[in-house]
This record gives sequence, structure tokens and C-alpha cells, in this order.
Amino acid sequence: MSLHELQSRVNAWMSQWKDGYWTPHENLARLTEEVGELAREINHSHGPKKKKKGEGEGSIAEELGDIIFVVVALANSMDIDLDAVMDATFAKYNVRDKDRFERNE
Amino acid sequence: MSLHELQSRVNAWMSQWKDGYWTPHENLARLTEEVGELAREINHSHGPKKKKKGEGEGSIAEELGDIIFVVVALANSMDIDLDAVMDATFAKYNVRDKDRFERNE
Amino acid sequence: MSLHELQSRVNAWMSQWKDGYWTPHENLARLTEEVGELAREINHSHGPKKKKKGEGEGSIAEELGDIIFVVVALANSMDIDLDAVMDATFAKYNVRDKDRFERNE
Amino acid sequence: MSLHELQSRVNAWMSQWKDGYWTPHENLARLTEEVGELAREINHSHGPKKKKKGEGEGSIAEELGDIIFVVVALANSMDIDLDAVMDATFAKYNVRDKDRFERNE
Repeated sequence: MSLHELQSRVNAWMSQWKDGYWTPHENLARLTEEVGELAREINHSHGPKKKKKGEGEGSIAEELGDIIFVVVALANSMDIDLDAVMDATFAKYNVRDKDRFERNE
Repeated sequence: MSLHELQSRVNAWMSQWKDGYWTPHENLARLTEEVGELAREINHSHGPKKKKKGEGEGSIAEELGDIIFVVVALANSMDIDLDAVMDATFAKYNVRDKDRFERNE
Repeated sequence: MSLHELQSRVNAWMSQWKDGYWTPHENLARLTEEVGELAREINHSHGPKKKKKGEGEGSIAEELGDIIFVVVALANSMDIDLDAVMDATFAKYNVRDKDRFERNE
Repeated sequence: MSLHELQSRVNAWMSQWKDGYWTPHENLARLTEEVGELAREINHSHGPKKKKKGEGEGSIAEELGDIIFVVVALANSMDIDLDAVMDATFAKYNVRDKDRFERNE
């Protein structure tokens, strides 16, 4: 799946609904919620958190999917092209962080 | 750019460094940091937050790029295939949320 | 309840358990989880989010309580005195942000 | 400082400004921002994150103060009494989580 297709599929999903895209603050709140669910799963699988009685199995992969979905919805709602964004992100790191960490020999 | 290529490019970036991938908790902390920077930008551009003196222009697109980068790094570090994840995410919403919001006529 | 008493009551709670205080990263993940739950409640009560079938009533007050609890646990685990912290926070804002927003006449 | 005094001091600070309290979503975005700054500091002091050139010293205590301030502002803006909230939180944990973790002998 390409980023472009991903943005189209999210747009097709959002266009079904009368409300359409949420506001930036509402999408941010949803992203905060999904990152919170990822945090809970990581504390369960890689940390000290015990499941409450009756609490079902969660999945880090599922939470990453929810996070990517709302990030793409945010981008769509602001006409942001994620292909251009990711090219710029790699370019930024390749300059800014080229000496920031210890390299493999 | 495909999700597969995106995961390879992030892997190529991470493989340069002696430390390699961070732990799930460290990547989660970085994701939390990047979502915080997105929150600041949204409160500047769509909310009441005033820039501090000398505070530079931020960019929502740039913050979305940083968020996607660390989500992909997290997925890579746990051998999670994001193509499969996004197919499962759309399938989940198409069942669970098919009647959850008011539809367009 | 004073901040000092609050820190003592959280310490009394944490001291019951063999694991004692979690690491900073684990407590941060828990804080991220609780802020995520607050985000969900705010999107329910002040935003467009619809409850899933069978999803119980949530409470913003309850989520604020969980957030304060884990912030105090984090402070305790690093021997941080929250009385001193809040005095410094008010002092910082009274200088840094004294002209940052439009004042009431 | 008592929770009651803390809520009054935050109210006194907020009452200076024409805009007064922000909306729940705007305060949530500010809380997300402050938790993000805490995350950065924890990854610096307890994780693998290297400071960027010229990046100043941060402080976990300072970030906890910013977090508590915005949590109290959120509570104030919704007429939530944090004394009652914290009593309810301890009561909840004393019942729900009394057997959740391994006890000290």
C-alpha cells in the first residue's frame, strides 16, 4: 500500500459520514487517545503493568494501525501530502542528525 | 512511497547507528514527545496559544513526519508489517464502526 | 489535602508492593495512557466521538485523578518536592508570561 | 500548599487574562504538549536521546510543574474539586487494585 493509496482509503472512509473530518483539536485528542492505548499495551508486554480481571488481550500492531489512521486523517483534513512530508523528514534527519549518534564501524 | 519502502528507509537510517533501535518504552517516549510538538503547533495555528518571544515558526506537516517516522521505527523494531496492519485496521472499522456515525444521504 | 500529604499517601500506596515504584519510562507510559483516557472522555463530552455499543459512562474527574496520581508517583520516585515545584512554576509564569496574553481591563 | 490553594492560585493566574480558561480540547492539547516535554527529558536523562547542539538543560521537575498547572486549570474550568477527586482515586485503587500486584511480605 502506498502512502497516496492510504490517504485515499482514509478519505473514502471519512467521506461516508455527515460530520466528515473532525477538527484538528478533535483529531489530536483522538491521536492522544490511541497513543495512550499503545502505551498501555507496551506497559503490559514490556513493563510491569498487570491486566485487570477480565481485561482482554491487546495488540501493539492494532494500536499502531489506529495511530497511523488518525495521523493520515489529520493530514487529509489539512491537505498535507504525506509522500512529500516523509521525503522532507528523511532529508531533515540526514542533515540535522548525521553526527548525532555513534555510528556502526 | 509505499509502506514497505517507508519501513525499509527507516530501517536503513536506524542501521547506521551502534545503538540501533531503541526499546519499546524509549520509542514510546519519543512518540509522546513528537505528539506533544504536534499539539503545540495545533494550539498555535488553531487555538489560543501565543508564541513565546523568539519562538520560530513550527509546522504541522513536519510534526506529522516525525510521528510517522517513530511509529515506523516502533513497527520495525517489533517486526510488524504495516501493510498487514493497515488492511486489518480498515477491516476492523468497516465492521465495528459501520453504523457508528451518521451517514451522508 | 496538601501536596505533601498527597505525596505521602501515594508513597504509602506504592510501598505495599514488592515492585515498588516503576521506572521513569514505565511511569511515563502510564501517564501517557491516563492522558489518553482523558482525551477519549473529552472527545465524548465535548467532541464528536460516539460511544461504542456497551461502552460505559466515563468521567473526566476520574481521569484527572489517575493523572495526578501517576504524576505524584513520578515525583516521589525521583525525590521531587511538589511544593517547591509549584512555587517555582508560578514564579516562572509570573515572569515569562506576564505580557504574553491580553489582560482584562 | 493544599490542593484547594493550588486551585485558587491557578484561578487567580487565569483570571488576569481576557481569554480566561481555554476550552477542554485546548487545555488537553496543552497537557499533551507538556507530557511530550516530560517525555523528552526522561529520554535524555534515562534513555538514549542525545541533546541537539545548543539544546539547553531541561528539568523533569519543571515539566511536572507545567503538567500539574494545566491539570488544575482543566479541573478549575470544569468546576472539579481535586480534593474530592483524589479521595475518590485512593478509594478506587484500594478496592480495584488491592490484589493486583505482588505484596511486600
